[in-house]
Amino acid sequence: MRKLINAPEDVVSDALRGMAAAHPSLRVDAATGVVVRADAPRRGKVALVSGGGSGHEPLHAGFVGPGMLDAACAGEVFTSPTPDRILAATMAVDGGAGVLHVVKNYTGDVLNFRLAAELAEDEGIEVAAVVVADDVAVEDSTYTAGRRGTGGTLFVEKIAGAAAEAGAPLAEVAAVAADVAGRCRSFGVALAPCTVPAAGTPTFELAADEIELGIGIHGEPGRERAKARPAAEIVDAALTAIDDDLPVAGQDVLVLVNGMGGTPLLEQYIAYAAAAGGLAARGATVVRSLVGPYVTSLEMAGLMITVCRTSGALTGLWDAPADTPALRAGAR
Amino acid sequence: MRKLINAPEDVVSDALRGMAAAHPSLRVDAATGVVVRADAPRRGKVALVSGGGSGHEPLHAGFVGPGMLDAACAGEVFTSPTPDRILAATMAVDGGAGVLHVVKNYTGDVLNFRLAAELAEDEGIEVAAVVVADDVAVEDSTYTAGRRGTGGTLFVEKIAGAAAEAGAPLAEVAAVAADVAGRCRSFGVALAPCTVPAAGTPTFELAADEIELGIGIHGEPGRERAKARPAAEIVDAALTAIDDDLPVAGQDVLVLVNGMGGTPLLEQYIAYAAAAGGLAARGATVVRSLVGPYVTSLEMAGLMITVCRTSGALTGLWDAPADTPALRAGAR
Repeated sequence: MRKLINAPEDVVSDALRGMAAAHPSLRVDAATGVVVRADAPRRGKVALVSGGGSGHEPLHAGFVGPGMLDAACAGEVFTSPTPDRILAATMAVDGGAGVLHVVKNYTGDVLNFRLAAELAEDEGIEVAAVVVADDVAVEDSTYTAGRRGTGGTLFVEKIAGAAAEAGAPLAEVAAVAADVAGRCRSFGVALAPCTVPAAGTPTFELAADEIELGIGIHGEPGRERAKARPAAEIVDAALTAIDDDLPVAGQDVLVLVNGMGGTPLLEQYIAYAAAAGGLAARGATVVRSLVGPYVTSLEMAGLMITVCRTSGALTGLWDAPADTPALRAGAR
Repeated sequence: MRKLINAPEDVVSDALRGMAAAHPSLRVDAATGVVVRADAPRRGKVALVSGGGSGHEPLHAGFVGPGMLDAACAGEVFTSPTPDRILAATMAVDGGAGVLHVVKNYTGDVLNFRLAAELAEDEGIEVAAVVVADDVAVEDSTYTAGRRGTGGTLFVEKIAGAAAEAGAPLAEVAAVAADVAGRCRSFGVALAPCTVPAAGTPTFELAADEIELGIGIHGEPGRERAKARPAAEIVDAALTAIDDDLPVAGQDVLVLVNGMGGTPLLEQYIAYAAAAGGLAARGATVVRSLVGPYVTSLEMAGLMITVCRTSGALTGLWDAPADTPALRAGAR
C-alpha cells in the first residue's frame, strides 16, 4: 500500500488538521470531523450541511464557504458520520432560518442524517433534507436502496447554496435543491481501483485490460466489467447511459467531467473534449462546465460525468459568487 | 497501460481540444499547443509567456488568464515546445510593452525559449526571460545543467503576473520574477511512477516498500531510493532539504504542498498538516498556502513541497486578483 499517510487510523484527523492549517476561512474540529464556515452561524440565513464518508475530497469540506455549504461532517474513510456529529454541525451553523441537509443516497448517510434531523428538531431547529441519487449506473447497490448519490451533489450544494446566500427561505432552498437533484444524472468508469487505508487491499481487482463501467465512488460494482477502450468510447458509454435515463436533446446543460482521484488532469481534458462533442451530437447545449477532481474515490483512476439539465434561473445561481477551498465562482 | 486516452500520439491535441471547449476565456490552438488569453494582446501591458512539455497540468495552460500568464505553449508529453511555437505565442500576446518568458530550467526549454526570444526580437518585440531552478534535490540531472525548475514556477507566474497586470514595465516585471525565483525552493518525493503514453512503460520502477526522495517532475532520478515511511517523515525530509539550502527561520513564507497527479487530496492535506508543523518548528511563519495538484507528473503518486520566502510586497502580489482555469485569487 503506497500511501502518503501516517497511520491508517489517523488518516481523517490528520487530513482535517491539514485543512485547518491551510484554510483560516474554516473552523475545523479534527476530532469530530465537523468543518464549519468561520463566520457561522449567519443570522437569518438558511444553512446548508452536508457530509459523508471521507475519501471523496474535496467533497464535502472543500465546498464549505460563502455561497455553498455552511458545514460539512467527515466520517471515517467511506463511512458515514455519526448522528451526534451531524447534529453538532447543524447546531453550529443554524442562524435561526433553518438548516438544509444535503445527503448522498447511501443507507448509512440517509439514516444518520435523519436521526440528526430529529435530534435537531428536538432542539428547536427546523431541518429539511434533500437526498441526491443521481447515479444512473445501478438501481440498488452495495450500500444503497435506490440509486447512489455522486457528482450531482456538487450541483445541489452550489446552486442551493447560492439560493440560501441570496436570502431564500428554507422551503425555497429545499425546493431548489430537490429540483437540481432531479435534474442531475451521473455515470462513472474505473480504470484502476483504490485502497482504503484501514483495509490495505484494493476495493476490487481489474485485469490489465479491463475497466468497470458504472462504478460507484467507493469502488462498489457497476454495470459491467468490460475491455479497455479509447477515452472517446468510454465517454460515449457514460453519456449514453445518462441520456437514456434523462434525455438531453434540446436542453441547456451544466457538465462536470470529474477525475476520480488518480487520473491526471491531462486525461480529464481528453475526456471533456469527447463529452463536449458527445453532448452536442445529442442535441444538448453545454452552458457551463467544470473539469477536475471534485468528487473522488481516493486514488481510483477513472472518471465520472455528471450532466445537469439547467434553466436560466439555475444557471444564474450556478454563476453566483462562491468562495470555498475547492470551488470559487462569480465575478471578481 | 491504464490511461483515459484515445491514441498516444493524440494525447496533447485531444487535451487541448478539451481545454478549448471548457474555457471560453482561452484561445486554444490544439494543433500548435499555443494557449492564449482570449483578450490578448493587451495594449501596453507586459505579457507573460511560459510553456514546456505537457504532462504537468494544470501547469502551464491552466494558469493563463488575467493576473497570471498571457500565453502558454504546450509541447508533447515531457518534451519542450519548439521555438516557432514559442515565437507564435510571444507574437500573439505582445501588446507593445514587451514579453517575459518564464522558463523552467530544462535544457530543451532553455534553448528553445532562447531561440524564440531571438526570433521575437528580430520582429521588434522586446523579450526578457527568467529561468526557474528551484528544485534543491540535485545539482544537475537527466535533463538539466543546474537545478531543475518545478513548483517555484507557479509562484513566479502568479507574482510576476500580478506585477504585469498592475502595469509594471518589463524590466520591473522581470526583476520581480527573478526575485521570486531566487526565493523559491522545492523538493519532491515519489511513491509510484508515471507512464508516458508514447512509451507505454513506467519512467522508473519502485519496489512496493520503496520511495524516491528528490524525484524530478519527469520521473528523473532524485537523491536517493529509500524505504517507505510515514507522511510526517517524508515531509520532514523535504523540509530539511529546503531549509538546508535556504533557511526559513524568521521568514514569512508562502507554501505549496503539491500532489503529483496520482495522490488523493486527502493525502495532500495530511502532508500539509506535517508541513505546517515542520515549518513552524523551524521558525518560519506561513502567511499563505496552497494545497492541491498544481504541478504534476501525469499519474505519479507523491508530493512536492515548494517554499517561497516572501515579503509584504510579494505577498500583496500573491493576493492580487487572478482568474485562470486552475487558480483564482483575490477579493470578490
